Amino acid sequence: MSDGLTAIYEVVAHNNSILAIARDICLEQTVEVTEALCAEPAIADRVVGRVQSIRLLRKGLFEVHIYYPGVALGYELTQLISVLFGNISLKSGIRLVGIELMPQYARHFSGPVHGIEGIRKALSVYGRPLLMSAIKPLGRTAQELARYAHSMAMGGIDLIKDDHGITDQTISPFEERVERCCEAVASANARTGLRCAYYPCVTGPADMVLARTRFALAAGAGGVLIAPLVTGLDFVRVVARDTGLPVMAHPALAGAFFAKRHGIAQKVLLGDLMRLAGADMVIFPAWAGRFPFTKRHCVSIAQALRREFYGLHPSLPVVAGGITFGHLEELLRAMGRDTVLLVGSALYERSPDLVANAAWFREMVERYGA
Amino acid sequence: MSDGLTAIYEVVAHNNSILAIARDICLEQTVEVTEALCAEPAIADRVVGRVQSIRLLRKGLFEVHIYYPGVALGYELTQLISVLFGNISLKSGIRLVGIELMPQYARHFSGPVHGIEGIRKALSVYGRPLLMSAIKPLGRTAQELARYAHSMAMGGIDLIKDDHGITDQTISPFEERVERCCEAVASANARTGLRCAYYPCVTGPADMVLARTRFALAAGAGGVLIAPLVTGLDFVRVVARDTGLPVMAHPALAGAFFAKRHGIAQKVLLGDLMRLAGADMVIFPAWAGRFPFTKRHCVSIAQALRREFYGLHPSLPVVAGGITFGHLEELLRAMGRDTVLLVGSALYERSPDLVANAAWFREMVERYGA
Repeated sequence: MSDGLTAIYEVVAHNNSILAIARDICLEQTVEVTEALCAEPAIADRVVGRVQSIRLLRKGLFEVHIYYPGVALGYELTQLISVLFGNISLKSGIRLVGIELMPQYARHFSGPVHGIEGIRKALSVYGRPLLMSAIKPLGRTAQELARYAHSMAMGGIDLIKDDHGITDQTISPFEERVERCCEAVASANARTGLRCAYYPCVTGPADMVLARTRFALAAGAGGVLIAPLVTGLDFVRVVARDTGLPVMAHPALAGAFFAKRHGIAQKVLLGDLMRLAGADMVIFPAWAGRFPFTKRHCVSIAQALRREFYGLHPSLPVVAGGITFGHLEELLRAMGRDTVLLVGSALYERSPDLVANAAWFREMVERYGA
Repeated sequence: MSDGLTAIYEVVAHNNSILAIARDICLEQTVEVTEALCAEPAIADRVVGRVQSIRLLRKGLFEVHIYYPGVALGYELTQLISVLFGNISLKSGIRLVGIELMPQYARHFSGPVHGIEGIRKALSVYGRPLLMSAIKPLGRTAQELARYAHSMAMGGIDLIKDDHGITDQTISPFEERVERCCEAVASANARTGLRCAYYPCVTGPADMVLARTRFALAAGAGGVLIAPLVTGLDFVRVVARDTGLPVMAHPALAGAFFAKRHGIAQKVLLGDLMRLAGADMVIFPAWAGRFPFTKRHCVSIAQALRREFYGLHPSLPVVAGGITFGHLEELLRAMGRDTVLLVGSALYERSPDLVANAAWFREMVERYGA
């Protein structure tokens, strides 16, 4: 039992059904056969999940710890996800709320290549939260988007990303956009002496993600943005290992997992799993914005990304989703210094002068977040 | 408006909020900015989603039709998913229940390479439902699994797949298993004169899926099994186009999308989207099995897979998930002839003689399903 992990589920059940449900999860997520077909010790003791504890949380709700052996998990992120929630996603009242890795199993994951320290070093920004904005909206040409990127970099924004829905549409083809934006940011950096980084969106066809990332690297991008639940989570690992570029994860589709009593907890999906996959930064909605996220969700994800976790580099939480300048002070107070603030629409709307708006954003963050 | 698609959502709302919510979906899924930032006609008219209709279904629930232009969707499956449900997954009370493609947009998807006719031709089975079983459980060696495959093929099973949790674990490494099982099935076919096909599971790391599929092709596999929501949906397309092998989709993780009032309807996720991606067969739980699927869900998915759909080949529905022989007659009556019946545990449990069990399964299907 030194190899494998413990999954912690919250399970809706009656007192007289919880044991059967817990046992069912053990079978469903590993051997997928009836008890009779996995009774022999070579399988029952070595492969099948094992109920470690069952605890009543409140009437009708239990916390169940299940140990999955390393041999079942197989040391691949895809199989890890399948074991944690693959088949039981099709049942109901089961929510994955935590994972605890055994040391020997944890060794198979190398996590973020850069981590918080690496990202800060690349940007040469210390002692304050990081500033991010997005070039948008979809419908602008590559030239227009590059102009925005230039203005943001001139105003002192640290990180600029493509909007996650800007991929390779004809209106702003990937390669043209990446080249123009990299040039725009580099030319601004040459004037400011700063090290603003541009992260293009490489979410795309399974046979194009890596090619786009390599193109981004060659063009001088500082990292890439990807929506791991759209492309497949393992692409975070592949992209990071292949190119060495920092990877920022976008939460598109993640909300499907956030039902109250079924799914995967925010801190596990956007925290633990994204970090295991190797995301250096993870975007999620701030509680003050346009999504129904609570402060508790945000803090729990940030904690998962930054805590001691099997020696992996910590990742930077990126709060986003309709943040306005009026929210900054409250957000920074709750989220702490090792946080990225992603302000989109509000940055464009403050005045027609995007350079001035960016400088104003920076001033606000330096005031509240130092 | 000849390019793009109409998405149909069921939205939980009050009479006085539905318009704002519908409009919010249009923005959130395309431009992701405030109204003010996308007001100019080049964006407002060409890129932003458009509310086509709003209809009260019952108190507090509306059906909303939203048109997304092709230029926003960008002709990639990943971007299609992002637009349909990416960001709004993080909101609540929004369920995607249908998609209607414009002809010019539909042309970008080629769907299943083989379809029902192609699968039947490869197996040389006409006029009755198809029989499938799985080699399992995880924990058996490649040699043991190959022996099962041989027995099943000898007994007249049409399709044999790896259990979806059997990937590349040390206990049965992918390449060894695929070689042994392909040999076992080929040797059985040589004796029976049948054309049983073995589909290994290629769910795995993003940089290994294609390599495993190519290995399967070279080893003589009849097709591959993949869990598209674990690997990324677009891998269905890539694997099918690259190797020409038939692709069978497994529903692991799909249940996360099936909340009652939020997510993606079964028939859209496992029906329309899997078919657009190119799945020749799609597995889902039968209503008579161990998952909380209803007959209505199953019939709706089958209908989506087999209906006239922009000229794409139809796909075969595969009912599974704890089917017993007692259920067969009812299942076949509801699902019709162009259906695959996947019986796992029950096939192993009927008697210790797997060949006889398989022959019995075949006899049952020939009796009820002809």
